[in-house]
Amino acid sequence: MNAEIVAVGSELLTPDFQDTNSLYLIRRLGDAGIPVIRRTIVGDRPADMVPTLRAAREASDLIVVGGGLGPTGDDLTREAVGEALGRRLVFHPEILTAMEARFARRKRPMAESNRRQAFVLEGAEVLENPRGSAPGQWLEDGGRRFVLLPGPPHEFEGVFEEQVWPRLRAWRKGFGIRRILRTTGLGESDVEDRIAGLYPETGSVRLTVLASPGQIDLHVSSFSEISEAAAAGSADALTAELKSRLADFIFAETPMPIEEIVARLLTGEGKTLATAESCSGGLLAHRLTNVPGSSAYFLEGFITYENAAKIRELGVPVGLIATNGAVSAPVAEAMARGARSRSGSDYALAVSGIAGPSGGTEEKPVGLVFVSLAGPESVVSSRNLFFGRREAIKWQSSQKALDMLRRALLASP
Amino acid sequence: MNAEIVAVGSELLTPDFQDTNSLYLIRRLGDAGIPVIRRTIVGDRPADMVPTLRAAREASDLIVVGGGLGPTGDDLTREAVGEALGRRLVFHPEILTAMEARFARRKRPMAESNRRQAFVLEGAEVLENPRGSAPGQWLEDGGRRFVLLPGPPHEFEGVFEEQVWPRLRAWRKGFGIRRILRTTGLGESDVEDRIAGLYPETGSVRLTVLASPGQIDLHVSSFSEISEAAAAGSADALTAELKSRLADFIFAETPMPIEEIVARLLTGEGKTLATAESCSGGLLAHRLTNVPGSSAYFLEGFITYENAAKIRELGVPVGLIATNGAVSAPVAEAMARGARSRSGSDYALAVSGIAGPSGGTEEKPVGLVFVSLAGPESVVSSRNLFFGRREAIKWQSSQKALDMLRRALLASP
Repeated sequence: MNAEIVAVGSELLTPDFQDTNSLYLIRRLGDAGIPVIRRTIVGDRPADMVPTLRAAREASDLIVVGGGLGPTGDDLTREAVGEALGRRLVFHPEILTAMEARFARRKRPMAESNRRQAFVLEGAEVLENPRGSAPGQWLEDGGRRFVLLPGPPHEFEGVFEEQVWPRLRAWRKGFGIRRILRTTGLGESDVEDRIAGLYPETGSVRLTVLASPGQIDLHVSSFSEISEAAAAGSADALTAELKSRLADFIFAETPMPIEEIVARLLTGEGKTLATAESCSGGLLAHRLTNVPGSSAYFLEGFITYENAAKIRELGVPVGLIATNGAVSAPVAEAMARGARSRSGSDYALAVSGIAGPSGGTEEKPVGLVFVSLAGPESVVSSRNLFFGRREAIKWQSSQKALDMLRRALLASP
Repeated sequence: MNAEIVAVGSELLTPDFQDTNSLYLIRRLGDAGIPVIRRTIVGDRPADMVPTLRAAREASDLIVVGGGLGPTGDDLTREAVGEALGRRLVFHPEILTAMEARFARRKRPMAESNRRQAFVLEGAEVLENPRGSAPGQWLEDGGRRFVLLPGPPHEFEGVFEEQVWPRLRAWRKGFGIRRILRTTGLGESDVEDRIAGLYPETGSVRLTVLASPGQIDLHVSSFSEISEAAAAGSADALTAELKSRLADFIFAETPMPIEEIVARLLTGEGKTLATAESCSGGLLAHRLTNVPGSSAYFLEGFITYENAAKIRELGVPVGLIATNGAVSAPVAEAMARGARSRSGSDYALAVSGIAGPSGGTEEKPVGLVFVSLAGPESVVSSRNLFFGRREAIKWQSSQKALDMLRRALLASP
């Protein structure tokens, strides 16, 4: 069994619109164990839609068509599917009545054009859409299933979850499970080396590795036709093996960012935090304060871009900068100590480095970043050489700082 | 004349990958006045590719196929196009030689599998790819053009720009022009009201409005078969009218973020800046320091999350907080004054508000944000009520702060 997606809308053929409905659908069909073999984005013209729909009927068991069900003259999905499948459109007075009631509730007049939305393909079931006026449709056609969904994402997702998902589950008996592992501190090839030999050979379990600067995520998905326990069993067996290979580089087993993991650890232990940033320029504090409730543990941040500010705000000794340079472990450590003592926090993180694109030297190249953590017991530092553009270097610096704090909090007695 | 895009790769049919190559291509084909009528994403299996390619040949004058040209067994685009068009693959020894030289330069052994990349469709021109080992291909087939491009984005864009663009320009005579206007400070419906009646009725000029929190961009694109001057003429006529309607809400006529506009103004006037942030939590400083060279004007930032920090670092009077609350114009102004005098900067921006989701009251709801700017002459404030989630409120706060500084710098004598 396989599926394909046809997204209708000329706006989706402009460079600025993402077809997010299809990404959503790929994920949910994956949960049902239905692979998507093709995704087509086509404009509003029936002349472009009809051949696309006919080709889809040749290739796939399930064809989900999103968009083009609204009231305007550009909304021609109903007509195009009718033409492609040789089916008439039938007027459903109860849809019109529901639409009229909807407009009346909102005390707005209903334009005549809305009538178009009451036409349904001959033989199709109507899929109710309480979030909008255009209902979806479900049609069985010579062994194929055609599903028509409204384009606005909250309507698309609503009709899918409430109307399509139960029908798919009745049709495609089976159970999907997903697991996620998020790591930081390893490069992509390090991860590949560690997990070598673990890529599953069967189609029912899949492993996907997603790399971004400072973070590598592993997704395990599994499907069983028998039971949820069977799907979970094979997903968990692979996940357990991945966990033993990746060990404490894993910071989360949920799709949470590391700042949220750190937030939970700080809250759980009742500890507070301050930051002192040079090259990360406020990004570290920004990420920490993205977490709702961060005022419970985040006391204060310093962005000491100028050396004068490092001296004035954080008490970094002038001589330390003169001897080592601002980008050095001793200065990063002094910044962390200064932020901790000034704010009275339990922990303080400091970042000093060269984000580029200029300012690098042979001895201290762009991407060289020192990160220090001052805690109740001691001050520790790391020396890092990050690659990429300015924003990627800032990002990796903040990621490293958060990971150092995460490890310290996990190790604290 | 029309085009369609076929993106090949099973990874593009997972929920986590965006097909960015196609968005890039839609923009560039638009520049050449070639509309894209369909965009298909298809997996690696030739059985799925071949019908897609045949349907494309039926429908479109130009078919760009991206991906699947690499050395691995999954890279079957060459074979699938050959099958769809009934053309043999021909071995090109000069491609193999170039590949061998490339590996030799990198002092790495060349795996035998790379030989596959030296096969070219019968009758196709080879499109050199200095950024990778797989070359592209350009094939004229019964009045249709097939273009095969490597999948990695920098190779895709490189081969497109250097090899495909000149061929397209020779084929599709005409001239495309794009203009952009970026605004802040107006809501989407405000913009729509102001530009009412300006949407062009002809197909050769298009106006697109893109709204995001705190920013609305207007894109004007125009195409002429006659001359660049004709295309520019119609684009500029509309742009001039839009500019008169949107006036000083426009902060840029390039795709630059507002922090970069502010950076240029500060640099141009030789002025310096400090920041004092509460609810924006470092985002304002982060945006300012994303601009390369920001150390020339950005001296220092304070993130005074705790009230104690506002008092200690910025000298906000205790009584002012007690009387007005931390989220108030007087406190934001005192923060700005404190950051300016402490850092010795020419300007200082301060933000104090409630980013939510909790912490709001009837009198001071979530989204209430005071932004103050202290300058050489005076301190000014704005009271804002932003909507959205925590990150959207932080973002709009930083946007408002940057816009206040922009306006002050433009007005300064």
